Amino acid sequence: MSQDTVRFTLEGVFDLTAKALMASGADRANAEAVAEVVRNAERDGCQSHGVFRVPGYCAAVKAGGVNGTAAPRVVDAAPGVVRVEADNGLAPLAVKVGRPPLIEKAKSQGIAALAIGDSAHFAALWPDTEPLADAGLVAMSFVNSRSFVAAAGGARAVFGTNPMSFAVPRPGRAPMVFDQASSAAARGEIMIAARDGHAAPEGWGLGPDGAPTTDPAAILAGVQLPFGGYKGGAIAMMVEILAAGLSGGDTSLEAEAGYTGHGGPSAAGHLILAMDPARFGQERFLERMEGLFQEMLADEGVRLPGDRRLANRARTPTEGVLLPKALAEDVQAIAGA
Amino acid sequence: MSQDTVRFTLEGVFDLTAKALMASGADRANAEAVAEVVRNAERDGCQSHGVFRVPGYCAAVKAGGVNGTAAPRVVDAAPGVVRVEADNGLAPLAVKVGRPPLIEKAKSQGIAALAIGDSAHFAALWPDTEPLADAGLVAMSFVNSRSFVAAAGGARAVFGTNPMSFAVPRPGRAPMVFDQASSAAARGEIMIAARDGHAAPEGWGLGPDGAPTTDPAAILAGVQLPFGGYKGGAIAMMVEILAAGLSGGDTSLEAEAGYTGHGGPSAAGHLILAMDPARFGQERFLERMEGLFQEMLADEGVRLPGDRRLANRARTPTEGVLLPKALAEDVQAIAGA
Repeated sequence: MSQDTVRFTLEGVFDLTAKALMASGADRANAEAVAEVVRNAERDGCQSHGVFRVPGYCAAVKAGGVNGTAAPRVVDAAPGVVRVEADNGLAPLAVKVGRPPLIEKAKSQGIAALAIGDSAHFAALWPDTEPLADAGLVAMSFVNSRSFVAAAGGARAVFGTNPMSFAVPRPGRAPMVFDQASSAAARGEIMIAARDGHAAPEGWGLGPDGAPTTDPAAILAGVQLPFGGYKGGAIAMMVEILAAGLSGGDTSLEAEAGYTGHGGPSAAGHLILAMDPARFGQERFLERMEGLFQEMLADEGVRLPGDRRLANRARTPTEGVLLPKALAEDVQAIAGA
Repeated sequence: MSQDTVRFTLEGVFDLTAKALMASGADRANAEAVAEVVRNAERDGCQSHGVFRVPGYCAAVKAGGVNGTAAPRVVDAAPGVVRVEADNGLAPLAVKVGRPPLIEKAKSQGIAALAIGDSAHFAALWPDTEPLADAGLVAMSFVNSRSFVAAAGGARAVFGTNPMSFAVPRPGRAPMVFDQASSAAARGEIMIAARDGHAAPEGWGLGPDGAPTTDPAAILAGVQLPFGGYKGGAIAMMVEILAAGLSGGDTSLEAEAGYTGHGGPSAAGHLILAMDPARFGQERFLERMEGLFQEMLADEGVRLPGDRRLANRARTPTEGVLLPKALAEDVQAIAGA
């Protein structure tokens, strides 16, 4: 089923997003931090974290479910730890103000952490880690969210989709970055399958009755499953503990209980780690890891995580991006444009 | 098919292992560090990392493939980074000497790393992380090894089985610890299936011809697969980069190329991370995470990783453990006992 679409430049995406958020009550700093993440998602072809999310962001700000005028504050918690008190705002501005001290600490200490316990996140994590890899660091990021996912063997939602991201600098090109939910599917993927009337693959989740189903609407009403069986379930638990435990943010169950139903992002815990290979004494890190990537790519059928994003990124700054017409009109209406 | 077995006390396992290693040319410090890990594996019912591994350890020392009299040296690489120059020895002693400065740094900096680039490892990782959790820290460990595992989508071995471990302290009881290969199966599991004549489950690997197979011997001669599809493949790659990249240790392909066929553990990179929840400002960390564990366990069918190990641990100090008779005789012969 084809859909009416309308073409936007990347700057058009940025402007529309910022305008819609400001019309919903966000200040410029918060609106532009979100707009930057949304523009970069569209630039990289990640529609599930692009303009698709803007009505939710706006609803959350408008309803007061998140603080659209949050003034995040950096706390120097320990020589290796930055905390950001995010003032219950959206994650992008909190990450933006926490990043420079995180980079500084990683470069002076060798390893450092940034913990954010009181922001709301829609959970694309490569925008967290890629700029750290651009600064020459190896980076990891972990976020939890409302409880949508069962533990391995279970049928009750206790974890968020709990994504993690990992980024590694590469010499003379964009970093290698992966960003993956620890659920079998990202919630956005299931939402899009439900919207478009597609079946979900087996293994994505259980219906409200606890039985396996391929109906995306039933999974959204029921419970998602971790990827990869008990090992993926262990990863989901690890992300939950790192993200919520070390930041003091809500666990996924707490985030669910406190959610006010505004349709936007929920409270979440958030942990970002950064390591400087030079401070580990690894002067040849870039060259050695590039050798590893080339060995991987020598095997037919192997591609590096994120290469589809990079291919889109080469194209969209000149071509622009296509948005579903109904979505664009929704966001334009919010923006009063 | 039942097997003749013989009962050992845990101290008997320790003594036999230490004696066999010393008879093979290891000094007491190295022999006892390995014997402690082997005894703890048997104590916890992890046969695949217990006495089963001792003939390999001994062969490696005897052949000079690893240095049985290694004197690992601690290097204070950065405020948050300890490096151990392991003198090409076995990992257990290197980890043992690196642990106290790692704990000290994690408690003063909030987060710290221990990197070991020149030791040989048989890759049970919970002995790395559990003592850190016993000290009140959240711990992660990553090790690579000889190349046995294809990247997602590939058919050529580029990664080791690349296990990772994660440990979290619990109030008044043993830490929650998981330790899992990023391959669908640990190599030891496939070796045991081959030894016992069992078929391997689908998805564990490809034969030498690149086709899927359930014959464990064919997988050992062919290539193992990551767990959980492309997401597990991303985890395998992450472990490779953290373990080999940040320690300067061999990549899995380098370890394979340099392996001298002694049957023992191979060169590997090794990274351990430790974080102090108190330095993140999380005074209620233990209580909150225990609440999470209890929520998980309230779902019928869910168990915490490592609880089988803890059940064995409650039993074996009084009951002892059963070893296959042929294995016990092999190791006794090496020990000259």
